[in-house]
Amino acid sequence: MVYQNLPRTQLLELKKELTAEYEKYKAAGLKLDMSRGRPGKAQLDVAIDMLDDKSCVSPSGLDCRNYGILDGLPEIKELFTEAMGVPAANIFIGENASLALMYTAISFAMTFGVGGCKPWSKYDKVKFLCPVPGYDRHFAICEEFGIEMINIAMDSTGPDMDTIEKLVAADETIKGIWCVPKYSNPSGITYSDETVRRFAALKPAAKDFRIFWDNAYCIHELYPDNAVKLLNLYDECVKNGTEDMPYILFSTSKITFAGGGIAAIAMSTANLAEFKRHMSVRTIGADKMNQLRHINFLKANGGFDSIMRKHADLLRPRFETVLNILDEELTGTGAAVWTRPAGGYFISFDTLPGCAKKVVADCRDLGVTLTSAGATYPYGRDPKDCNIRIAPSSPSIEELAQATKVLCLCTKLAAIDVILNAAE
Amino acid sequence: MVYQNLPRTQLLELKKELTAEYEKYKAAGLKLDMSRGRPGKAQLDVAIDMLDDKSCVSPSGLDCRNYGILDGLPEIKELFTEAMGVPAANIFIGENASLALMYTAISFAMTFGVGGCKPWSKYDKVKFLCPVPGYDRHFAICEEFGIEMINIAMDSTGPDMDTIEKLVAADETIKGIWCVPKYSNPSGITYSDETVRRFAALKPAAKDFRIFWDNAYCIHELYPDNAVKLLNLYDECVKNGTEDMPYILFSTSKITFAGGGIAAIAMSTANLAEFKRHMSVRTIGADKMNQLRHINFLKANGGFDSIMRKHADLLRPRFETVLNILDEELTGTGAAVWTRPAGGYFISFDTLPGCAKKVVADCRDLGVTLTSAGATYPYGRDPKDCNIRIAPSSPSIEELAQATKVLCLCTKLAAIDVILNAAE
Repeated sequence: MVYQNLPRTQLLELKKELTAEYEKYKAAGLKLDMSRGRPGKAQLDVAIDMLDDKSCVSPSGLDCRNYGILDGLPEIKELFTEAMGVPAANIFIGENASLALMYTAISFAMTFGVGGCKPWSKYDKVKFLCPVPGYDRHFAICEEFGIEMINIAMDSTGPDMDTIEKLVAADETIKGIWCVPKYSNPSGITYSDETVRRFAALKPAAKDFRIFWDNAYCIHELYPDNAVKLLNLYDECVKNGTEDMPYILFSTSKITFAGGGIAAIAMSTANLAEFKRHMSVRTIGADKMNQLRHINFLKANGGFDSIMRKHADLLRPRFETVLNILDEELTGTGAAVWTRPAGGYFISFDTLPGCAKKVVADCRDLGVTLTSAGATYPYGRDPKDCNIRIAPSSPSIEELAQATKVLCLCTKLAAIDVILNAAE
Repeated sequence: MVYQNLPRTQLLELKKELTAEYEKYKAAGLKLDMSRGRPGKAQLDVAIDMLDDKSCVSPSGLDCRNYGILDGLPEIKELFTEAMGVPAANIFIGENASLALMYTAISFAMTFGVGGCKPWSKYDKVKFLCPVPGYDRHFAICEEFGIEMINIAMDSTGPDMDTIEKLVAADETIKGIWCVPKYSNPSGITYSDETVRRFAALKPAAKDFRIFWDNAYCIHELYPDNAVKLLNLYDECVKNGTEDMPYILFSTSKITFAGGGIAAIAMSTANLAEFKRHMSVRTIGADKMNQLRHINFLKANGGFDSIMRKHADLLRPRFETVLNILDEELTGTGAAVWTRPAGGYFISFDTLPGCAKKVVADCRDLGVTLTSAGATYPYGRDPKDCNIRIAPSSPSIEELAQATKVLCLCTKLAAIDVILNAAE
């Protein structure tokens, strides 16, 4: 029964039933959280053996307790090479999460410029392209630095490349784009080969245009035997002679410990020389003890694969729980559409236009915390007020089931209100 | 026999003897390093028990493996309170070394401004006062951001406060000063109570003037039973209503692991709110697992005292070895003067004017690496070319003895040359 097609009386009756259900949930006093992509406790236990590691000497004989090694231990770079799709020599290891590396890269560009160009801060205004829906923390960095954000629509093949090609070719003040190319946050889509090729072939007016290729979920499959393949951007860029364009990000935040992982940024040889020159003033080097712990743990597990399979086994039933309930509760109502990602950390959920804020507020009223409506758009402004990001990783299956039922209930109620109001 | 007073013939004879010795060292093919303040291996072993720690839950029940806690675990802040001389609520924990926090604080000031004032980057030029000799990495940050550095002379009570008071009161573009107030790098002097009081009472023209109080050696005594006391700047500032002036730095780099420690910055409540607003865009929080390891290790040892005594026992004979040889070889020659620090990591060594570069080059020629001459001055320019920083922490006693003898030899030779040339 598609709500849009129901007669008013029936809608009012349905609303009454659903409101009664709402009051029941309210009385239950739930306290559930599907707001952030935090790994669950069992996922953190996947890497618990790291804590048994008492070594402090790296395979090449370096005492990791002391100062030194600006760009990270060579062995950890080697281990990251395949996942990042770049040679070890192009990798810089630093910080405990890639967010700080992205922030720093933009800070350097603002203050010092990149690629020998003038600092971005010397422009009246610089702009970034933001495929939407996207990752709120990317957008927050742009807001912090006063970088104007331009929404770019996405479909199942990635962002709208026609628009991107046209915009970057025409406007020298467009300096970058945020991409989560695989299992995109929040939509879960993976860029098609053609999209990646078109990124590598971009001809931006700005010599210092940079693609922030935040490959946060590059090996984060839900169905490892049917892993989705993302074309290697760096290889394509090398073919096109555009290897100075991408900054490629990676971290173990969702592989080992979310708050105590290892992050990395990869870039062309020319970019890296410049990046290291600034980094060498900022730090003598990141925590090598944690790098060593990761080297030993990854080697003991034969690399990432078996580790990521354990994560998949923990995440898959969580995604399936949410998706099954969405199917049961909402399919055929026309009240919402959602994605079915084969990896990553999120499900993107679209209510009817004008409902997302109300749904998130109503869920909160019932004790279910969701990512703020609008968070997946620059400036927190979802033009259609319809997108909600669902993060199923952290709650238990039972909690997820309850929280998703609450979400469905609030989505239905909001949809009915919108339809009733529109008819008035 | 003061070289200056020796007749030319005797000087030439001495030169011949010393040159023969030089050739002997050259043939020996030494490979020694007194260039950086790296802890020695035995010092790193002081904290080796940290590696036995398998816990991942903080005393207050937080799973430290997951995301969260922007400003650090409350328990580590409590443990740092006494050493830093500030309330726990004013401490921000982050990064693995204080260098990165200083860099970040200046980066924020350049890009966003501090205390509601306009960004430093909006000035044609901003300036920092630099007590000299000082720490090369402080100066490198200023160079990186194009901040003009003004040398400030130091004596045994600290930097020249008359000049500082006059300069900051007169010039709104002077935005900061670098201080290592206790066991200063490299001179080893500790600021007198009066100096600290005058810092707290500064009346800078710039509302956004900041004192970078890099208290890197605050508990780093060589003679713990005769610990040198530094007056608490923060308390003095609170009395004067100037608590927005200081940024107070601390780290465990020279307490636990040099490359895997915990760093902290403390500041007024108003400054901290601003700092955290920016930091919250940069990071979800530093590595809490390492914070937890430090909490447990410090608690198991009853705080810092017994740990720092072990370091003192390792460092003291090293300092004494260097100082004894300097005494034996150079006292009475007039070829050099040097400091006798009661803590910290360095001995400051002054050759005759115009000799430091030559001495460092000659030492390198003999296989002894020293900190580059000039490194202790802004822009690497020691106006008298006389200061050399000696870092005795890392080599063995035997190596130190050899390296110091080489330093003495080269210092004598350079002095003789200078005296001979002056007489021509």
